[in-house]
Amino acid sequence: MTNEMPKKVSKIPSIRRLPNYLHILKRFHEDGRDYVSTTHLAQETGQEPIVVRKDLEITKVTGQPGVGYNVPELISKIEEFLGWNNTSEAFVVGAGALGNALIGHKGFMSHGLKILAAFDNNPEKIGTKIRGVPVFPLEKLENLGPRMKIYLGILCVPDSAAQICAETMVKSGIKGIWNFTKVNIQVPKDVVVQHEDLASSLAVLSVKLSQALK
Amino acid sequence: MTNEMPKKVSKIPSIRRLPNYLHILKRFHEDGRDYVSTTHLAQETGQEPIVVRKDLEITKVTGQPGVGYNVPELISKIEEFLGWNNTSEAFVVGAGALGNALIGHKGFMSHGLKILAAFDNNPEKIGTKIRGVPVFPLEKLENLGPRMKIYLGILCVPDSAAQICAETMVKSGIKGIWNFTKVNIQVPKDVVVQHEDLASSLAVLSVKLSQALK
Repeated sequence: MTNEMPKKVSKIPSIRRLPNYLHILKRFHEDGRDYVSTTHLAQETGQEPIVVRKDLEITKVTGQPGVGYNVPELISKIEEFLGWNNTSEAFVVGAGALGNALIGHKGFMSHGLKILAAFDNNPEKIGTKIRGVPVFPLEKLENLGPRMKIYLGILCVPDSAAQICAETMVKSGIKGIWNFTKVNIQVPKDVVVQHEDLASSLAVLSVKLSQALK
Repeated sequence: MTNEMPKKVSKIPSIRRLPNYLHILKRFHEDGRDYVSTTHLAQETGQEPIVVRKDLEITKVTGQPGVGYNVPELISKIEEFLGWNNTSEAFVVGAGALGNALIGHKGFMSHGLKILAAFDNNPEKIGTKIRGVPVFPLEKLENLGPRMKIYLGILCVPDSAAQICAETMVKSGIKGIWNFTKVNIQVPKDVVVQHEDLASSLAVLSVKLSQALK
C-alpha cells in the first residue's frame, strides 16, 4: 500500500509481479534452459498468459512466436528495468527483531540491495554488528547519511518513533523510505514512500480464510 | 501478491486499505471523537474521498450526510468484516530471524491474531520459548496441528524447505497459509495462500526511487 505515488509510475501490479518472473527465470537459467514460452510462465506463476505478456512488455522484451522468450535476455532486461543490475546501498533505522530479520534477508542481495548500516537508540545494540552490519546511535544518522551518500532507508522502529525518525532520514538525504511501521509518515513530496503494511495482507488472508472455512 | 485467489473475494484493494482506516479510527476514538467525515479520512490516508466512501461501503456502513461516520460503529463494523473481532489462532513454521520478528509483532494481537506455537528443526531452538511462544520440532507439526485445531499457518522457512513444509501444514489441517518465502507453493484448491513477497514491494520502490532521482 502506498500513499505517495508519483504520477509517472504506472503499471504497479505488473512491476510487483516482475520479481517472481525473475525468480522463476533464474531457476530455468540454472537448469540450462535457453527459451521459455508465455504459456509456461503462466503455468508457473498462476497468471493468465495475456497477463504475463503484458507484464513483460514493460521491460521492452518481446517473445518470438513459436520460440518464446530468450531466458538470459529476459533476466537481464527485468533486472535493468528494476535497476537491480546496480547495487543500491541502504540503511536500516530500528535494529529490533524486524530490523534484524531484514538485515539477514538473503533475498535482498540478489535484488542489488546492500544494507550498509543500522541505527538504533538501544545502548546494548549500539556498537555491535548484525551479520556484519554495524549498529550506530540514532543521532549519528543525520551526519552519517550524507557522508555515505545513501538514498534508501528502511524504517522499522516502533510506531511512536516513526514520524520523527522519518524526518531525520529525510534530513540525512534519504529519497526513498521503505516504511514497515503502521504510521502514515508525512514527508516532502520529493521523497518516495513504500508502505509495507503486514496488516493489509492479513486483512485479505482473514477475509479469504473465513470464506474458505464457511 | 497472490497466486490463488478465490473468485468470491473481490475488492482486494479495498480490503487491503481497511486496516489503515481502522488504525486511524482507533486513534480518533482514543481522542474522544465520535464522528469523522469522509474528507477527513481522505486527508489522513492520502486517498480520494470517493475511494474512502467505496472502501467503507464493503463493511455496509454508510455515513450520515453532514455528520459523517460514527467512529465506534465504523470500528466495530470493519473488525467484524475482517473477522478481527474474534481471535484467530495461528502457528509459525520456521523460527529464524523473520519468524522471531513475526512472533514479536505487536500489531497482530490487535488484529485478533494469536500465535500459539512455532515449529523449527534447529535443535538449539526446539524446547525454547520466543516471547512466551513455545518452539516445537517440525515433525510434531502434523500431530499437534489437528489437536490444536489451528487453521492459519505462517510460513517463514528457507526457500528450499518451503514446499515440503507447506505440504506438512496442509496435512496438519491448515486452511490458510501466509507465505513469506519466495516459493510459489503448490497446495490443494481449498487452501488459501497469501504470498507476502518483499521483493514485490522493493521492485515498486526501486522503480519509483530511480524516477525520483532522475
